Amino acid sequence: MISKNQIKQVTALHQKKYRDEEQLFIAEGVKTVEEILNQKPDIIAHLYASDAFIAKTNDRIQNTSVEYTIVTEAELKRISMQVNPNQALAVCHYFDTASTSSVLPDKNYLYLDNIRDPGNMGTIIRLADWFGFNTVFCSPESVDFYNNKVIQASMGAFLRTQVVYEPLAQTISKHKFKTVYGAVLNGTSIYKATLGPGLIVIGNEANGISNENLKLITTPVSIPAHGQNGTESLNAAIATGILCGEFFRQTQA
Amino acid sequence: MISKNQIKQVTALHQKKYRDEEQLFIAEGVKTVEEILNQKPDIIAHLYASDAFIAKTNDRIQNTSVEYTIVTEAELKRISMQVNPNQALAVCHYFDTASTSSVLPDKNYLYLDNIRDPGNMGTIIRLADWFGFNTVFCSPESVDFYNNKVIQASMGAFLRTQVVYEPLAQTISKHKFKTVYGAVLNGTSIYKATLGPGLIVIGNEANGISNENLKLITTPVSIPAHGQNGTESLNAAIATGILCGEFFRQTQA
Repeated sequence: MISKNQIKQVTALHQKKYRDEEQLFIAEGVKTVEEILNQKPDIIAHLYASDAFIAKTNDRIQNTSVEYTIVTEAELKRISMQVNPNQALAVCHYFDTASTSSVLPDKNYLYLDNIRDPGNMGTIIRLADWFGFNTVFCSPESVDFYNNKVIQASMGAFLRTQVVYEPLAQTISKHKFKTVYGAVLNGTSIYKATLGPGLIVIGNEANGISNENLKLITTPVSIPAHGQNGTESLNAAIATGILCGEFFRQTQA
Repeated sequence: MISKNQIKQVTALHQKKYRDEEQLFIAEGVKTVEEILNQKPDIIAHLYASDAFIAKTNDRIQNTSVEYTIVTEAELKRISMQVNPNQALAVCHYFDTASTSSVLPDKNYLYLDNIRDPGNMGTIIRLADWFGFNTVFCSPESVDFYNNKVIQASMGAFLRTQVVYEPLAQTISKHKFKTVYGAVLNGTSIYKATLGPGLIVIGNEANGISNENLKLITTPVSIPAHGQNGTESLNAAIATGILCGEFFRQTQA
């Protein structure tokens, strides 16, 4: 049985202001919460879950001393950010994703320039994890990593990806990136260019890469379109997927 | 000024049942409605828009005799399916996307096997348009093409893409596809395989390609992952983007 106080505390975390104040965020759903229990149980401050979920994950919960409250479907709905909440909601501590010791000059990394849609950011973190690009840099104005939709869309990849918010110039100088690729509409086709290690800058959904950051791009690249009169642009996460695939093919496959 | 009857009529179209009954659907937002005015104004049954939008598109509206009602922001909110509606909502007639005369044996086409998420389907239609795969086949149980979120996510590409709902076996036999690629988790790497013309089958978000349809796949292919212990799968639209990019590279770039 959930208390009024708990409901108030959890729903406050729907807003970034209170997340930052409490240094807590929400992760939801059977698959996501199971991944947290398996990979980073220490970050769980409190787990709200159905009795079926608790029974199913009982071993992990006992081993890791996770504090939990069993909730009904109706109670879960009151604290969830989802239309159809699914059995489990974990209130988690912010954790250190920002240790960049493993950023290597012979690999590829993504820099997200003002990505605003949380679904896009989560999807990009998921695909970066797939291709082994284990650090994602973001401009300071990009959407909050701890936004519930980022966490959901990353499908657990948020646990394995270092996410660093800093200006592009700082990322480049700190890690001595020599090649800075930028996804633009009139660059060299990625299928003609010889792609190598370096930073890959992805622009904002509506406006692309900012003018300030465009100056720091050494190698503008594009995904070629089939013809005229078609779609003017691709979804930012789709474009990132196609770029990452081609970088992966040319450098690692 | 919008009437109570209009509000009732438009909001009914939020449900597939009434869309099918009336053979009408909703398309929203400045960019999408402008594309309809430019490319297929005949499908507009009625336009609800701000006076600013009407003023801006006045030439097109006069030339094409589109019937319209000027609405306030509050009125638009009452008929919209979006949290933040943007100036224009067009009620449109279902139109014929299903003429498959241009399906050619030397090109690539997508077959969506039970894609359920409307955002995914819209995004896939947008990227199919980008790469010039101008017909998208869907299993009968896939999400409704006229779902508002499909229309939104396609960013106007729904106007240029033929979408056909039919069983996979029928698509294959009707168009004599010899090669049927299937996106699976344990196929040949797309970066090692020699890809050519043919149908590319994309599976359901959670369950992949159905057992029945797997039997019809001649060439199972996969997007290679970087390593172990990472993300188990990619988002369906992202995977489709990466596949389409590689087919495009090998056959057309």
